[in-house]
Amino acid sequence: MALVVQKYGGSSVASAERIRRVAERIVETKRAGNDVVVVVSAMGDTTDELLDLAQQVCGTPPAREMDMLLTSGERISNSLVAMAIHGLGEEARSFTGSQAGVITTSAHGNAKIIDVTPGRVRDALDRGSIVLVAGFQGVSQDSKDVTTLGRGGSDTTAVALAAALKADVCEIYTDVDGIYTADPRIVSDAQRLDSVSFEEMLEMAACGAKVLMLRCVEYARRYNVPVHVRSSYTTKPGTLVTGSMEDIPVEEAILTGVAHDRSEAKVTVVGLPDVPGYAAKVFRAVAEAEINIDMVLQNISKVETGKTDITFTLPKTDLPAAVDKLTALQGEIGFTEILSNESIGKVSLVGAGMKSHPGVTATFCEALAEADINIDLISTSEIRISVLVDDEDLDNAVRAIHKAFDLGGDEEAVVHAGTGR
Amino acid sequence: MALVVQKYGGSSVASAERIRRVAERIVETKRAGNDVVVVVSAMGDTTDELLDLAQQVCGTPPAREMDMLLTSGERISNSLVAMAIHGLGEEARSFTGSQAGVITTSAHGNAKIIDVTPGRVRDALDRGSIVLVAGFQGVSQDSKDVTTLGRGGSDTTAVALAAALKADVCEIYTDVDGIYTADPRIVSDAQRLDSVSFEEMLEMAACGAKVLMLRCVEYARRYNVPVHVRSSYTTKPGTLVTGSMEDIPVEEAILTGVAHDRSEAKVTVVGLPDVPGYAAKVFRAVAEAEINIDMVLQNISKVETGKTDITFTLPKTDLPAAVDKLTALQGEIGFTEILSNESIGKVSLVGAGMKSHPGVTATFCEALAEADINIDLISTSEIRISVLVDDEDLDNAVRAIHKAFDLGGDEEAVVHAGTGR
Repeated sequence: MALVVQKYGGSSVASAERIRRVAERIVETKRAGNDVVVVVSAMGDTTDELLDLAQQVCGTPPAREMDMLLTSGERISNSLVAMAIHGLGEEARSFTGSQAGVITTSAHGNAKIIDVTPGRVRDALDRGSIVLVAGFQGVSQDSKDVTTLGRGGSDTTAVALAAALKADVCEIYTDVDGIYTADPRIVSDAQRLDSVSFEEMLEMAACGAKVLMLRCVEYARRYNVPVHVRSSYTTKPGTLVTGSMEDIPVEEAILTGVAHDRSEAKVTVVGLPDVPGYAAKVFRAVAEAEINIDMVLQNISKVETGKTDITFTLPKTDLPAAVDKLTALQGEIGFTEILSNESIGKVSLVGAGMKSHPGVTATFCEALAEADINIDLISTSEIRISVLVDDEDLDNAVRAIHKAFDLGGDEEAVVHAGTGR
Repeated sequence: MALVVQKYGGSSVASAERIRRVAERIVETKRAGNDVVVVVSAMGDTTDELLDLAQQVCGTPPAREMDMLLTSGERISNSLVAMAIHGLGEEARSFTGSQAGVITTSAHGNAKIIDVTPGRVRDALDRGSIVLVAGFQGVSQDSKDVTTLGRGGSDTTAVALAAALKADVCEIYTDVDGIYTADPRIVSDAQRLDSVSFEEMLEMAACGAKVLMLRCVEYARRYNVPVHVRSSYTTKPGTLVTGSMEDIPVEEAILTGVAHDRSEAKVTVVGLPDVPGYAAKVFRAVAEAEINIDMVLQNISKVETGKTDITFTLPKTDLPAAVDKLTALQGEIGFTEILSNESIGKVSLVGAGMKSHPGVTATFCEALAEADINIDLISTSEIRISVLVDDEDLDNAVRAIHKAFDLGGDEEAVVHAGTGR
């Protein structure tokens, strides 16, 4: 008998009818002889509706109360799924994050899981029950207050529970039927991957692939939890995220796929003194504003002026804060001006294969040149090449690279609507 | 500095705008120098919407999951009120029933409060915060599962918290501005009462007065918590429910008011053997079906047949179960037939005054006779007379008795719409 953890996104439980269908799939898994733990996100638009109500009563709602408010969404969806399972003749018990032992930091709105102590979940499984756990939420170790885990929190809950329960697999049900070589909405012959290593999936997620959030993959890799990404709407095989790159024979090493990201903006700090320590001042200032930067480029110094420029990318949502912070320190840091640009996109090629195949970077750049796309900035890791291009060129860049590396399949990719939390 | 517990019903927080108004009233109370604990019901139609969703996913939802589902309603309203208070510049923290230490039995859907251990509430008050507690909910002592308290649960939560915190007063804000001598929708000159004793209020609630639920008044009397019933929409003085009848000087003893109840049905068990023990069999059968009966009448025996009839009243909702149970035992109990009637109403006169004023029953019956209303059944206590009449005569009966005992005032009563949980 296996222990299976399943996670269903908000669009999978957006209506009573969908909830009944999800319940059927859960009951099937149970009747196939498995112990089943299920993590469900809030129904469809619930979170947006609650956020809207909060805005109406208070312009800047306190984070603690926001967490108390938003976690009611998962409470509703999980108890409804438990009821639907009951209607199909199986025992089901729903638990809040706190009841399931999801212990977190007290950073409301973006708490980190410290520990999972799923004693009550284990007991309920031992009594033959299907167990539902409200995703996205926990209880803070210090204050015992209700917390939320931030974006991708329900996936992380599922993986963390799978790790704590030593589950055989964590199945993430979503609105796509697996991890693709590129976004099927952009590349019509994008292929579903049967399996991806944790490292490759980490790079894909970090580069904007939205199917799995970065922190969920990090958690899965750290605790070695196989993650199976599948569609809520089909019985297709999906994609298994598992194992290390080292397990893949070099001969078979291939390129995983093309990821893209429209969520970043670019900042250029112009006319910085070209002496040691000034770049550090810029990045310290941004770090103090709690902003993560992604790509960085320092221009070649102009000897005649003794000045240089630094360009970096960061989440668009953090752009105003970064500009404010740097502007406030302009005198201290001593730069001339700040330029910013939100009309950029990042395209990345990920794959363990590039380690052993020379010429990948050359092919990559040639493909973009042939498509007449200008490269703004390049950054690479051992298994990834990323470039920054103009926002309007992004889709073409994804298609050009996908084609240049022959990642396409024969089948037309299927696209479903909706996103989960 | 006083400690005030306030409770607001669902209609008082039905929209963002009403939530902001409730928050203003709470902040006013705080700024007047009081410690404030607030219990809020679920917003307007939330509970009905959740019940509807539950019905759509499962015909007979398990009670445990129903409690998990329904308690999200109070979680939403309480966190929103906390946010609105924050928006007005005061600290506020919301707690679930479990966090506030409301320990209950494990009877899902109708749990009883066993104990209240409000340590976290006390701490938050001591730090200067306004405290919100989700009403209607608790945590079961045995299973640590989320429970609900059933009808009137939020009022009971408020009174129980007031008792545990030794509050100076428990203010119940509702859609009427106090306890009236009769329902103002029926009697246009019904008067608001300045104060009522616990005993009188118990009789009023037991006889159908809907402003306060019976169990909330029982709790308040047991722990001697003064309950102040006030309108959410006005600043009128309301009605104070407090103290014992014994505290009221006999000279001032008056009649409290006229209550009515449309929620009961009547059952007559016909042709029961007129020997000891058969009435007991009937009532044992009904008790085994967990049904509370109210009024009881045994007809004078007909010597010629050796048979008698027993009539009793019970909640309309329990009528089918009672008839089923009795019918199943017809052979054993040995009656001829069961008659039932749902077209009945009960009108009651309540007041400590009737103890010391003879002739109250006579005046009561004369008033109904003059209004040409037939009395079906009479039952009395030390401070109450109740009669059963035809449903269609009920409003006229209320008016006739209110007038006969000169309970009316000079002012027209004001009626607001909506009900709370």
